[in-house]
Amino acid sequence: MPEQPQYGIALFGAGRIGHVHARSIAAHPATRLVYVVDPVPGPARALAESYSAAHVDEATALADPAIAAIVIGSATSTHADLVEKGLKAGKAVFCEKPIDLSIERVNACLAAVLDCKSPLFVAFNRRFDPAIAEMKRRIVAGDIGALELVTVISKDPGALPLEYLSVSGGMFRDMTIHDFDMARFILGEEPVTVTATASALTDPDIASIGDIDTASVTLQCASGRIAVITNSRRASYGYDQRVEAHGALGTLRTENIPINNLVQEREDGVRREKPLFFFLERYAQSYRNEWDHFVRVLQGEEAPNPTGEDGRRALLLAEAAYRSIETGQRVSVAP
Amino acid sequence: MPEQPQYGIALFGAGRIGHVHARSIAAHPATRLVYVVDPVPGPARALAESYSAAHVDEATALADPAIAAIVIGSATSTHADLVEKGLKAGKAVFCEKPIDLSIERVNACLAAVLDCKSPLFVAFNRRFDPAIAEMKRRIVAGDIGALELVTVISKDPGALPLEYLSVSGGMFRDMTIHDFDMARFILGEEPVTVTATASALTDPDIASIGDIDTASVTLQCASGRIAVITNSRRASYGYDQRVEAHGALGTLRTENIPINNLVQEREDGVRREKPLFFFLERYAQSYRNEWDHFVRVLQGEEAPNPTGEDGRRALLLAEAAYRSIETGQRVSVAP
Amino acid sequence: MPEQPQYGIALFGAGRIGHVHARSIAAHPATRLVYVVDPVPGPARALAESYSAAHVDEATALADPAIAAIVIGSATSTHADLVEKGLKAGKAVFCEKPIDLSIERVNACLAAVLDCKSPLFVAFNRRFDPAIAEMKRRIVAGDIGALELVTVISKDPGALPLEYLSVSGGMFRDMTIHDFDMARFILGEEPVTVTATASALTDPDIASIGDIDTASVTLQCASGRIAVITNSRRASYGYDQRVEAHGALGTLRTENIPINNLVQEREDGVRREKPLFFFLERYAQSYRNEWDHFVRVLQGEEAPNPTGEDGRRALLLAEAAYRSIETGQRVSVAP
Amino acid sequence: MPEQPQYGIALFGAGRIGHVHARSIAAHPATRLVYVVDPVPGPARALAESYSAAHVDEATALADPAIAAIVIGSATSTHADLVEKGLKAGKAVFCEKPIDLSIERVNACLAAVLDCKSPLFVAFNRRFDPAIAEMKRRIVAGDIGALELVTVISKDPGALPLEYLSVSGGMFRDMTIHDFDMARFILGEEPVTVTATASALTDPDIASIGDIDTASVTLQCASGRIAVITNSRRASYGYDQRVEAHGALGTLRTENIPINNLVQEREDGVRREKPLFFFLERYAQSYRNEWDHFVRVLQGEEAPNPTGEDGRRALLLAEAAYRSIETGQRVSVAP
Repeated sequence: MPEQPQYGIALFGAGRIGHVHARSIAAHPATRLVYVVDPVPGPARALAESYSAAHVDEATALADPAIAAIVIGSATSTHADLVEKGLKAGKAVFCEKPIDLSIERVNACLAAVLDCKSPLFVAFNRRFDPAIAEMKRRIVAGDIGALELVTVISKDPGALPLEYLSVSGGMFRDMTIHDFDMARFILGEEPVTVTATASALTDPDIASIGDIDTASVTLQCASGRIAVITNSRRASYGYDQRVEAHGALGTLRTENIPINNLVQEREDGVRREKPLFFFLERYAQSYRNEWDHFVRVLQGEEAPNPTGEDGRRALLLAEAAYRSIETGQRVSVAP
Repeated sequence: MPEQPQYGIALFGAGRIGHVHARSIAAHPATRLVYVVDPVPGPARALAESYSAAHVDEATALADPAIAAIVIGSATSTHADLVEKGLKAGKAVFCEKPIDLSIERVNACLAAVLDCKSPLFVAFNRRFDPAIAEMKRRIVAGDIGALELVTVISKDPGALPLEYLSVSGGMFRDMTIHDFDMARFILGEEPVTVTATASALTDPDIASIGDIDTASVTLQCASGRIAVITNSRRASYGYDQRVEAHGALGTLRTENIPINNLVQEREDGVRREKPLFFFLERYAQSYRNEWDHFVRVLQGEEAPNPTGEDGRRALLLAEAAYRSIETGQRVSVAP
Repeated sequence: MPEQPQYGIALFGAGRIGHVHARSIAAHPATRLVYVVDPVPGPARALAESYSAAHVDEATALADPAIAAIVIGSATSTHADLVEKGLKAGKAVFCEKPIDLSIERVNACLAAVLDCKSPLFVAFNRRFDPAIAEMKRRIVAGDIGALELVTVISKDPGALPLEYLSVSGGMFRDMTIHDFDMARFILGEEPVTVTATASALTDPDIASIGDIDTASVTLQCASGRIAVITNSRRASYGYDQRVEAHGALGTLRTENIPINNLVQEREDGVRREKPLFFFLERYAQSYRNEWDHFVRVLQGEEAPNPTGEDGRRALLLAEAAYRSIETGQRVSVAP
Repeated sequence: MPEQPQYGIALFGAGRIGHVHARSIAAHPATRLVYVVDPVPGPARALAESYSAAHVDEATALADPAIAAIVIGSATSTHADLVEKGLKAGKAVFCEKPIDLSIERVNACLAAVLDCKSPLFVAFNRRFDPAIAEMKRRIVAGDIGALELVTVISKDPGALPLEYLSVSGGMFRDMTIHDFDMARFILGEEPVTVTATASALTDPDIASIGDIDTASVTLQCASGRIAVITNSRRASYGYDQRVEAHGALGTLRTENIPINNLVQEREDGVRREKPLFFFLERYAQSYRNEWDHFVRVLQGEEAPNPTGEDGRRALLLAEAAYRSIETGQRVSVAP
């Protein structure tokens, strides 16, 4: 193994997702966690010390030339500002989705950084799931022929608190946003119409704030290609995340990953383990792989993918889905 | 085992489905194949002789008091007439779906037999698939709590000749009709709106006759409950038939049945057998179970289910789906 | 379909397995159940009437020239005699395994019928399981290269009454006999040594009659090829029947067949259906396929397989396994 | 998260397994890689620099009081010496299996460290596989009742060079050793007899050095409980590692873990991904979990498990298996 430079990283946000990224940064031979930035000092300092890093403020982190990249894992409302500051400071930027809940703010942010030369990566981590990445590779290789029908089944394990939901932007912007990105990624063609049907069934609180929790959304492309997303906010058994791509020569589909591969056979039935419970467990490998990708971006070996434009497109589809529910009509979106 | 009467059966139609029913009738201890009726004498006589039965004309079969029931497996255009004649002759009637492709003819037929006392069974055989029957049983038992989302994935293996397709009534009436019945059966509540998106992608011939081959149809009930059907006319690997029911307490789903349970693991991958190829293989057990049910109907132990009304309802949903495609709108159906 | 002769069949034994064969005979277009022979008149008459057959005595059945074949599904102690009588009367013989529990009686029977020209089929039905038949076909085709290691996992669902066990001949002769045949069938080479380890663990009654219920038996061929059989008399979840063949290029293995393909996912786990409970359900398709084979034997299209010699060989391996347990040694068998 | 001490770790061996442990040490918040010790300077220095550690000699590492534990991942011939030196220097010791290929050297080593107070952990990592750990937990909890039959299927992907094999100690000491430990772990009772059958089939080179590559080994305990191990040195499709535990109330079994959960269905069959290829991929989670366990040992929360005695017991079973092959007899081992 040749000697290699180690990239210094500043991590914004010492919460749940911050811990995931801190571990990836420390475990990767090519990156080193230098700073943790978070307004709440206790957890930030503890996280920093676990990896021999320092807890500093935003200005210190952005000013240090030893910092090659920033990782934005802080509150959603801070993302767009940090993207602008980081790119303008010449840092590579790894930004958790979404850039913002408002399409106007996203547009403004992307316009503001248009001339920045540093790379911007928007972390739709599911594209880095090994099964999804392999599915995409095979579709591109022609293994299932012309693509015709994509199905995305996506159900959260539920139990999100009302405080979270009331500022989430609504299910399509908060949860289905991942599925819109997945559909676009697998389709390989921009949808031109969106048709949606939705209900609030799992929790009276959700209906009370005018949100939805159960939905079917159909996207159609100019070629006739169709994608269908089905969602529920609550699957009692864990995180239900399956994608199918159907083409002229066959189908590719991903199955849920069980907690482990144990099978129990008794008089009361054959029992397998439930799917991994939520995104931290289910997408653990995606987070590792996405960090590997970002390191290759730092090394100049790959272009960042997905980008800010991918973040913007997914949000546009969410807006169209809301209009379809309200009007009962098929809604056009600019390709 | 107590001695039991044997019911004499007249079978109309000596084609593919006729052979399936002839075998079921012969294998069941309580029924005996007495007559085969078919205008084409060669195959009809051969089939009759295989089971020590006679090849006769329609009038003879309907007039014989030794005949307890008729099985209608002839051409679709003959179904409604035979339903009327059979019931009016006091025979129990087992009718292959559909009763007719025209909703007007179905309405007229059902009106004409309203006062007949003999039972009419319409053979939506998939309800008798052991996994589907058990799914329904558990939903009714409350095993997954309040039902919220039903998904029906249904793909034909393809390769239907244009001559067939051009008189089929179109995909929604010919193929999706089974899925509309399945959705109704699993939902346990009549849909009130239908939204559909469809394309013709698999074969230029299909587009040339104005038909479709790839579709997503969403049904919504008054309670908010949603069902989503996805269809393709061509799955290279066989008959893809899966149903999922999602409720407050969990999910029930059926998997395809492989040709056999052999697994091959080699350097070129882990290979399992393909799904059973088409309806005759895939639903072989359903045909046996559906005949067991019909025998219990003859014995007065069960009411026929599904009925003529079920056949009519499925056709109404197909009509609504066509209107949704044409108008780009959510279409209401009477509950 | 060309017209074809119908073969008249006499069935000996109106018990559980007799009903299975009666149904196969009636459902097959080329065979007709003519006689049922059984000393207990009630069930025999009922079975006969279900299929428009007659209940007669042994002599009548054997003397009737309209009878092409006899099916022996009566008590084990009657098998060898009926094999001799049937073949000497010029009938084709379908004999349930085993021909006899005593190797001497089997040898005598096979010697007595050596000059008979009618075919003798010994019903090791598992060879006709679709997955097993396909496994054999692929091994012969070279799909996994040179065969090296065969594994047979075979567990009964349990609950056999002591009266049955005490006249069964012991687990190796009664239950493992099927696995010895399976190992021979898959190996394609005669074993030359047998090594066995066994215990009585599931039921004190089994130990009390000196029988065993849990065992590992290893067979080795002259080429070095190895087969391993593991047995238990009691699997709480049903009939556990799996076979693996490992070769230079890969592995072929069969999985249990679930009652149906329903999957339930809830907070209490992912539940699939149990394996089919016992041989009647698990091997329903094998019984149908074995009858198809026997019809082709009657039609002169195939030679009977397995034969009386296969029945004898399996019994020889059982004898060797008992000697290995008693002596603690690897036991040689004549190839 | 409360502040916690970080344990300083010295890693012996900068090879393949050394990299695995280095990454675990760096990623864990409670441990820090301080030294890498390896006679070959290039790779050692590169590994050290990747994690901001130093490349030093053995004496320096053992003398530094900041080092809480040593991890022995160097050549097998160095293990026993390092175990003795590390424990005598008061360090906790994490030793890759085996302690030594010679049972005499293992006995001597364990005797020499009898009075040392620091913990010794022998890294049979498979016990930490999530499915295996859960299987053990459920057996202990009584979920399958009294244990009766354990099956360990263990096949390497093959392709080991002759140089490796000729110093490996033979298949039973090098490869089956893991399966002996697994059988002991799951059985929960020491075997009292060993019976083995083996062949050399996969490679003429293996036969030429008098080694074996295909085997069946049966262990029996005083209670009658049986364990069966089947081995092959070459599975073309990857690492085949499955364990089954059968008890009075049911069976627990682990399935192989596929590379990812993608399924491809085409006319040429249903293809799933192969099992993870070899131990580094297959047991990646086990390595992480085993490190978590060792950290809890350092924290005084858990006793090391498995221990040196477990390493010794597995080796004793390998010796007995060789004697059984040579003598053709069931071989007794001291319980």
